[in-house]
Amino acid sequence: MSSPSSLPTKFGVLLFPGFQLLDVCGPLDILNMLAQTHPLTLSILASTLSPVSTAFPSSNNPAFSESLVPTHTFASPPPEGLDVLLVPGGFGTRSDDAVAPALAFVTAVFPRLTHLVTVCTGSALVARTGLLDGRRATTNKRGWAWATAQGPRVRWVPRARWVVDGNVWTSSGISAGMDAMYAFVGEVFGEEVASALADASEYERHTDSEWDPFGERWGVAKEQ
Amino acid sequence: MSSPSSLPTKFGVLLFPGFQLLDVCGPLDILNMLAQTHPLTLSILASTLSPVSTAFPSSNNPAFSESLVPTHTFASPPPEGLDVLLVPGGFGTRSDDAVAPALAFVTAVFPRLTHLVTVCTGSALVARTGLLDGRRATTNKRGWAWATAQGPRVRWVPRARWVVDGNVWTSSGISAGMDAMYAFVGEVFGEEVASALADASEYERHTDSEWDPFGERWGVAKEQ
Repeated sequence: MSSPSSLPTKFGVLLFPGFQLLDVCGPLDILNMLAQTHPLTLSILASTLSPVSTAFPSSNNPAFSESLVPTHTFASPPPEGLDVLLVPGGFGTRSDDAVAPALAFVTAVFPRLTHLVTVCTGSALVARTGLLDGRRATTNKRGWAWATAQGPRVRWVPRARWVVDGNVWTSSGISAGMDAMYAFVGEVFGEEVASALADASEYERHTDSEWDPFGERWGVAKEQ
Repeated sequence: MSSPSSLPTKFGVLLFPGFQLLDVCGPLDILNMLAQTHPLTLSILASTLSPVSTAFPSSNNPAFSESLVPTHTFASPPPEGLDVLLVPGGFGTRSDDAVAPALAFVTAVFPRLTHLVTVCTGSALVARTGLLDGRRATTNKRGWAWATAQGPRVRWVPRARWVVDGNVWTSSGISAGMDAMYAFVGEVFGEEVASALADASEYERHTDSEWDPFGERWGVAKEQ
């Protein structure tokens, strides 16, 4: 647990077309509740201030999608900086065009972050910047082959709900982002804080970072 | 499981200021994935087409919030109608001003729905319309006293992850909406469909509707 004076307060999340809704909103709902008792701020960053849609050309059905509204562009991030950046995954990570601006932003902002948290194929996005090289990390298990190929020098962990390496937290697919964020809140803000939030959300956490039936479900080899 | 020709396709979700993010986005992320293999459409309904924020005056921290973009207004819903309406909860349900337009919309649209699905204090919102009178229903366990007072003639179930009564599905607090939606998909589209979606989302479902440690956690009496 960090000392109160050093607790992170300035959170950011980046969006790109074709982001996975729960990758973003699962962790943010936890932080929304944390922000009721802690002086947190959220910046939602994207290429432009136009709403960003979960729909993506490669998705079969743009008629079923949602759009979130950014607060800042990558070119004009909050002048006070960011402490924690959340990077989601989604179909959009498969598109160079969709994620190129996000890649440049992550590379630029990373050195001044206290923590980087990725969910699902958000790990693959960040891996492409080289920032995960030599680090232990995990990602979506269904998309494992593609995702891990984005960072051949990353020490990918095939069976993990989430992985912590230094100040970088990476989670397994989609729903795993919630367990990772509760664990992050527990580590940084205190376990009793995380437990209270989970009780309020009526969420049964997986508190073991090595719990991962989905590695086997999706045929990810145990040893890499 | 419904016959293929009678499967619902036209989904809607209503928003109001101060909605709970995960109440909306947990279930919708499941449906986003279902929509990749089924011809579903989503209408996002609110009082106006302006983005709707999770922030609410009674919330301590509007500096940490998100906004979703509606596709339709309550006054101009999709002309082809809706099959399934999702009603979230959140702090906004405590405000007459915030939810009055939603109450009128739910009342008007309910007779033509195939299913109504509420999450968390979305049950309390719908209870105020009288549509739950005489039905079994559940709601958020931390907010139980307030929520159940919104519908004194509802047969509230104090220990339930979710409750089904006819074509009305009600869930317990926040995270319970995901288990309820997976159960709904299992019932209507088939259990193998629901299981495949949960595996893709790396989500460990609670498949027992009576599983509810949070009733006890929040001191909700077992017998009402």
